[in-house]
Amino acid sequence: MELDLIKLIKHHSRTLPSQSLEGSLITAIGDDCAEFSPSADSNLLLTTDTMVEGVHFSLSYYTPFLLGRKLASVNLSDIAAMAGNPRAALLNLEVPPGLSDPSAAFWPPFIRGLVERLAEFGAVLAGGDTVKASNNKLSLTLTVIGEVSKGQAIYRKGARAGDMIYCSGFVGESALGLKILQERHVPLPLPVKRHLIARHLDPTPRLHLGEMLAHCSVTSMIDISDGIATDLAHICKESGVGADILANRLPISRAARSAASALGINAISSCLYGGEDYELLWTVPSSKSADMEKKIAAADGHGPFFIGTIKKGSGVWLKDSQGLHNITFKGYEH
Amino acid sequence: MELDLIKLIKHHSRTLPSQSLEGSLITAIGDDCAEFSPSADSNLLLTTDTMVEGVHFSLSYYTPFLLGRKLASVNLSDIAAMAGNPRAALLNLEVPPGLSDPSAAFWPPFIRGLVERLAEFGAVLAGGDTVKASNNKLSLTLTVIGEVSKGQAIYRKGARAGDMIYCSGFVGESALGLKILQERHVPLPLPVKRHLIARHLDPTPRLHLGEMLAHCSVTSMIDISDGIATDLAHICKESGVGADILANRLPISRAARSAASALGINAISSCLYGGEDYELLWTVPSSKSADMEKKIAAADGHGPFFIGTIKKGSGVWLKDSQGLHNITFKGYEH
Repeated sequence: MELDLIKLIKHHSRTLPSQSLEGSLITAIGDDCAEFSPSADSNLLLTTDTMVEGVHFSLSYYTPFLLGRKLASVNLSDIAAMAGNPRAALLNLEVPPGLSDPSAAFWPPFIRGLVERLAEFGAVLAGGDTVKASNNKLSLTLTVIGEVSKGQAIYRKGARAGDMIYCSGFVGESALGLKILQERHVPLPLPVKRHLIARHLDPTPRLHLGEMLAHCSVTSMIDISDGIATDLAHICKESGVGADILANRLPISRAARSAASALGINAISSCLYGGEDYELLWTVPSSKSADMEKKIAAADGHGPFFIGTIKKGSGVWLKDSQGLHNITFKGYEH
Repeated sequence: MELDLIKLIKHHSRTLPSQSLEGSLITAIGDDCAEFSPSADSNLLLTTDTMVEGVHFSLSYYTPFLLGRKLASVNLSDIAAMAGNPRAALLNLEVPPGLSDPSAAFWPPFIRGLVERLAEFGAVLAGGDTVKASNNKLSLTLTVIGEVSKGQAIYRKGARAGDMIYCSGFVGESALGLKILQERHVPLPLPVKRHLIARHLDPTPRLHLGEMLAHCSVTSMIDISDGIATDLAHICKESGVGADILANRLPISRAARSAASALGINAISSCLYGGEDYELLWTVPSSKSADMEKKIAAADGHGPFFIGTIKKGSGVWLKDSQGLHNITFKGYEH
C-alpha cells in the first residue's frame, strides 16, 4: 500500500510548475528523511494540524480535491500568522480499508489539491508516512516547515494596553457555511449559500497579508481558527493583557447576517464563536494604525476591520449597549 | 482537552536538564508555530512516523513511558540513518474518549518517556496538535526536524557494485520479542525473554554511530525498520544495483536462535523479514572497509557485521549452500 501512494505523491509533485524550493530541496520522498537547505538569515517555523474524518470533516461535504486543499490551507494559515513563508511539508495518512487501494479515485485529486495549494505559496510536499487506520475513518496530518527572516516573526505575546485590534476579513462565515451544509433546506439565495459554503470548504491562508504586516509595527498576531472570543483570548493570555471588542464593529458580512437570520442564529454569536475562518487577527499601537491601514488598503483594495482595543487586566470582553460581557475562550469546539 | 495537555507537555519539557537546542528555540508550544534558529552551514532533515493502536502497538504490551520513548526512538532512527542530529519535534495526538481526561494517569509518563528520549539526543518537543480520535484507538504522530552539516548526509542512493554491506547489530530480535509477547507460554529462560522483549519495546536509535559513519566513506545507509530483505531492497532500488547477502554471515544472536527454535520459527527468516530492530545498514567501498571497521570497533567496543556485497543488476539475493534466492522486498508488514 505505502509504496504506491508514494509513487502517486511523487508523480503529482513533479507535474507542477517550477517551485521556489526546488533548488534547495536536496532529497525528498524516497529516503529516510527529506533534506533541504535553509536560507541564510532565516529562522524556521514549524506547525502541524490533524484532521480526522467524523471529527473535523465529512467526506459527504468535501470533494477529495478540496479536502487536500483545505489540509494545506489550515497549516499554511499558521505560517501566515507568524509572518513567515512556507517551504516544505510532510503528510501523514491513516488510511481506512475502503481507500487503501492506491488506484482509488480518491487519491489523485486529493494529492493534487494538497500539492497545488502548497505550491501556490512556495512549498513542496517533501515526505510523510502512510499507515493503516484502526477503523474505517480517514485521518490526515500535515506538518509545514516555513521560514521567516530573523527578527521578523510576529508572536501572540506582544500586545500592549492601548493597542488597536484588527482583523483581515469577515468572521463567522465559515461556521454558517458548515451549518448550511448540515441543514437540508435553508431558505437563502443560492449565491449566498455558495459563498458561505466556499468559505468553509475552501478558506484562503493570508500569507501575503501576514508578510506585509511584518512591516507595519504589528505587536501580536494569530489566525482565527476557533473564533474571535477564543483566538483573541490566546493573544491576551500570552501578552498578559485584556481586550474590549466593540459589538457594533464586528466584521459581519451581509451574507452572514441573512444566513444567521434564516438559520435562527444570532449573527454576533456566529462571528465571536464560529471557527475556521482563517482570517488574521492582530494588534498595533494606535500611533501606527493609520499607516498600517493605508498599506493594507493599497495592497488589498480594502482596509482591515478595526474591532476593539487592548487594555490592562485580562480576558476578552464584548462591549455593547448593555455594557461589558466576558467572552474569554467561549470558542469553537471542532 | 487540548489546552491542558499542552500544559502537561510544557511542564515536562521544562523539568528536563539543560538542552542543546534551548538557546536557539525562540518560541515553542503556545504560538501558531514553533520557531527556531538553524545552525549555519547545516541542512535540515525532516522525518515523520505515525503509530496507531491496534496496528503498530498494543497498550497491553507498552507502559505509557515506553510508548512515548519508542515513538521518539523510531523517528530519531531516521535522523541517524542520514547521519544527522535531531533538534526539534512536533507531536500529533488523536485521543480516544478513555484518555481524553488530561489528568489520566497515562499522559505524564507518556510525555516524560517522549521528552526524555528526545533530550537524550539533543532535541526538544516544540509543538503539535491534539484532536479527538474518531474511535477508541490512540494514534500518535511524531515529526522530527534534524540538522546535518552540508555535504555530510548519507543517502540510500550511493551504493556501487563491489561495495561491502554492513549492519550495526543483531537483527530479528525485535520481531521475536513481539512474538514472545503475543504467545503466552514460550519455553525460554527469563533473561532471554526479557532481552528480546526489550529489543522490541525499547529500541535504541543509532545516532552516535550514524554521525561517526559520515566520516567513514560510507556510500549509502538506511535504518532497518522493515527487515534486511526490505530495507536493503530500498538501497538497491535507489542506487540502481543488486545485493548478495551471505546466509552464514547474518547477524543472528544466540538469544534469537534459541527463541526462534522455541517458537518454531526459522532464525534466518526472522533476521531477514522481521522488522523494528532500528539497527543501521550501510555500504562502503571494499578499500575503505578495514578503516571503517576499526573506527567503529574503537568507539563501540565491537565491530559492525559484514553481511554481503553490492553487485550490478537489481534485487536482494540470499546466498546459501543451495544457491541464490531472491528475497527482494519480502519484508515486514506492520
